[in-house]
Amino acid sequence: MRLVPTILCGGAGSRLWPVSREQHPKPFIRLADGQSLLQKAFLRGAELNGVDEILTVTNRELFFKTEDEYREINQAKLATSYILEPFGRNTAAAIAAAALHISKKHGPDTLMLVLAADHLIADQAAFEQAVSEAIALAKREKIVTFGIQPDAPETGYGYIEASGNKVLRFVEKPSLATAQTYLDSGNFLWNSGMFCFMAGTILQAMEQHCPEILASTKVCMEQSRIAQADGFSQLELDADSFAAIPDNSIDYAVMEKSNHVAVVPCDIGWNDIGSWDSLGNLTVPDEQGNRLDGQTMLHKVENCYIQSKGRMVGVVGVSNLIIVDTPDALLVVDKSHTQDVKHIYAALKAKGHTAHKSHLTVHRPWGTYTVLEEGPGFKIKRIEVKPGASLSLQMHHHRSEHWIVVNGMAKVLNGDHEFLVSVNESTYIPAGHMHRLENPGVINLVMIEVQSGAYLGEDDIVRFQDKYGRCQVGQAQK
Amino acid sequence: MRLVPTILCGGAGSRLWPVSREQHPKPFIRLADGQSLLQKAFLRGAELNGVDEILTVTNRELFFKTEDEYREINQAKLATSYILEPFGRNTAAAIAAAALHISKKHGPDTLMLVLAADHLIADQAAFEQAVSEAIALAKREKIVTFGIQPDAPETGYGYIEASGNKVLRFVEKPSLATAQTYLDSGNFLWNSGMFCFMAGTILQAMEQHCPEILASTKVCMEQSRIAQADGFSQLELDADSFAAIPDNSIDYAVMEKSNHVAVVPCDIGWNDIGSWDSLGNLTVPDEQGNRLDGQTMLHKVENCYIQSKGRMVGVVGVSNLIIVDTPDALLVVDKSHTQDVKHIYAALKAKGHTAHKSHLTVHRPWGTYTVLEEGPGFKIKRIEVKPGASLSLQMHHHRSEHWIVVNGMAKVLNGDHEFLVSVNESTYIPAGHMHRLENPGVINLVMIEVQSGAYLGEDDIVRFQDKYGRCQVGQAQK
Repeated sequence: MRLVPTILCGGAGSRLWPVSREQHPKPFIRLADGQSLLQKAFLRGAELNGVDEILTVTNRELFFKTEDEYREINQAKLATSYILEPFGRNTAAAIAAAALHISKKHGPDTLMLVLAADHLIADQAAFEQAVSEAIALAKREKIVTFGIQPDAPETGYGYIEASGNKVLRFVEKPSLATAQTYLDSGNFLWNSGMFCFMAGTILQAMEQHCPEILASTKVCMEQSRIAQADGFSQLELDADSFAAIPDNSIDYAVMEKSNHVAVVPCDIGWNDIGSWDSLGNLTVPDEQGNRLDGQTMLHKVENCYIQSKGRMVGVVGVSNLIIVDTPDALLVVDKSHTQDVKHIYAALKAKGHTAHKSHLTVHRPWGTYTVLEEGPGFKIKRIEVKPGASLSLQMHHHRSEHWIVVNGMAKVLNGDHEFLVSVNESTYIPAGHMHRLENPGVINLVMIEVQSGAYLGEDDIVRFQDKYGRCQVGQAQK
Repeated sequence: MRLVPTILCGGAGSRLWPVSREQHPKPFIRLADGQSLLQKAFLRGAELNGVDEILTVTNRELFFKTEDEYREINQAKLATSYILEPFGRNTAAAIAAAALHISKKHGPDTLMLVLAADHLIADQAAFEQAVSEAIALAKREKIVTFGIQPDAPETGYGYIEASGNKVLRFVEKPSLATAQTYLDSGNFLWNSGMFCFMAGTILQAMEQHCPEILASTKVCMEQSRIAQADGFSQLELDADSFAAIPDNSIDYAVMEKSNHVAVVPCDIGWNDIGSWDSLGNLTVPDEQGNRLDGQTMLHKVENCYIQSKGRMVGVVGVSNLIIVDTPDALLVVDKSHTQDVKHIYAALKAKGHTAHKSHLTVHRPWGTYTVLEEGPGFKIKRIEVKPGASLSLQMHHHRSEHWIVVNGMAKVLNGDHEFLVSVNESTYIPAGHMHRLENPGVINLVMIEVQSGAYLGEDDIVRFQDKYGRCQVGQAQK
């Protein structure tokens, strides 16, 4: 029986600002070992017996970025398929779409293993053991949820009261006192948000318990188009009909109603990295209890977590602080208040400040660009183009561009003229000239671009041709 | 009788790291009104009646930077003269050199007003009144010190016990309990480090109380050369003979020994800005007691000072913190530990970390350069050249340079060829080419330089000609 790990990659991770941003959400956070949470989720599914395909449900803006993440670590060359949402619509819609897609593609008895893209599971062997158990139950038409053995009276999770694999009841996030009684009783598990079932089983349950979600998702699927390219397939969900799907969680819509639900209690080193406190705790502390990731100089400092990728951080006479430094934004938070970081994110978003949305380094299908400096009449970017990739054929009305290659080789179309530019060479694209930049080589092209002009907004771009389908109106991306 | 304000500009200001650096010490710190402490010291002297010249004693590495500061605010076009030290040698040597210089230039009865470059005096009228009083005493051959009326039992200053203008005794930095008794008694003043005397008076006192300092300073002055240019004169002290002058403070060497000493008690809003706490307190607090200078987003934050010139600083759940952000280094310190910031500076210096020495923006006689990014094989700088200024005629063995003008006009010599480069134009200087960059215009030239090469150190430079006298061996500055 085929098993398709289905990764749900959504949510902002606003409590992990400033590393997490709207366009760089929590699953893309990299841990000290260099892997992102998303990559870890991919490998978690990929390493299971007999898996040959990973399905990912995510926002369509994150597609290229997600595929970049997978490409880095997908050594087994598993097929990657995508369901791309125009916006977030909670877990019931995502799972309905995934189940309809898988059922149609591989048949209704295909097993789905629903995984979150932003959890950490330290014990892969125990996880695989739990999945085996879940599969056995799923084959018997059970809707299986994974229940984590609690080791603390957490108030941030829902709980499942269980007896063996039998679910007695789901309970909402409890008070601390209630959570303590749950922990003491030994019969309560954390609701992890991971599931296992046959596609047909969950569809049948939705038919019964939330028929309007299923029906509207079916309509949306019919309105949506599948694109196929380079070993991956993408189903891009139609925005209007997607908006018509009721917003609900799979827990409310199905789990709490169905009597086919079963639970696999497990102890797998699960961590949902809900705050900087739990992310910081992944770094080994020194003798003063300080967990340091980056250049630091400390004097009379205890029990702090400091992350700084570029700059020197000097800290004096403090304890229990978390300091997270990024190129354009800095966070200083007391360990007792890490949950409140979401208020900073929300306030920045409300103000329209870019620091909630994107980093200085912006991911594009062809690679990345990083704004190094903006001044009156000029903007400087470092542009990195992946081997074989190319930017769209484009033109700017208001800015000229000076390009200097500092690594790799560029193939440049400038007006009618096509030519190569190699390291330590430069070229000049006058405003109004149609141009294209391409990396014809096998190593990254790194180029410094100095833009000059009275208007330097990203939306001064006319696209004539684009291999990533970005010629539509309103796609103001390079 | 001529009065020459004499500004002593020395000391690192290591407690004000990371804004203060070895090459950008405390006097250069800018306050919220845009003026540096040094500029304020200059104006303090310049605004006195009848002053037509300001003498500054400083490190020779700070000469161009100091002159830049003065030029910005020297609207009265006072003459500026300099005594340039090869390294710091305490106040006795500096004052001896200044007094010898002034005595020779204007006669021994010339009045000197010795001012520190890094103090703040809020009440200029009260200051001028105190200076008048000091001048009257100085004319009667007194060595006058300014004693600040204390308003707190400070343990970081020396005290003067006084009766009217009479000094009863100087006392070292006291314990807190002793400081409190001083404050309560009403007879004790803070020793401010400002003095007034005739040049001949202090030279006579040095002859009597520290003849070896005076004699060795005289030897040094004879070995030193005076340069004269563009309305300022510089006496560059000879390093070997300067090193032979005993290291002592004017307090130890003269004040505590002479019976010609007088004190002017004054209440002038004096602040020596000894720490981030006192610097932060210059900013007006909001209702939560937070003093904010820059982009911030706060949640449950009280009594903090935050300075950030470029980046967004999010702070959650903390109080009594000081956060100071600069492009390459960040400081987080509890208000109770601001004196300890010097340990961070010292540790960085011991490690040879550049963050103790210079900012990303480096001042040169011709303007500034700012390193925007360094990567494998390339380095990007923003170069700003003042009107009429030019870099030396130079050559690099290992790096080529791409220059793109984004503001103003450049005059470029590249090999044998001289030409103009205007906004949105570029040029290329291959490795091995002799070249010079000049700003022939009347507005700042701003240029982006992309360096390319296997070695990009600042010491890969051969200077053929330099209008700032930097052709000597070992001057590895652009």
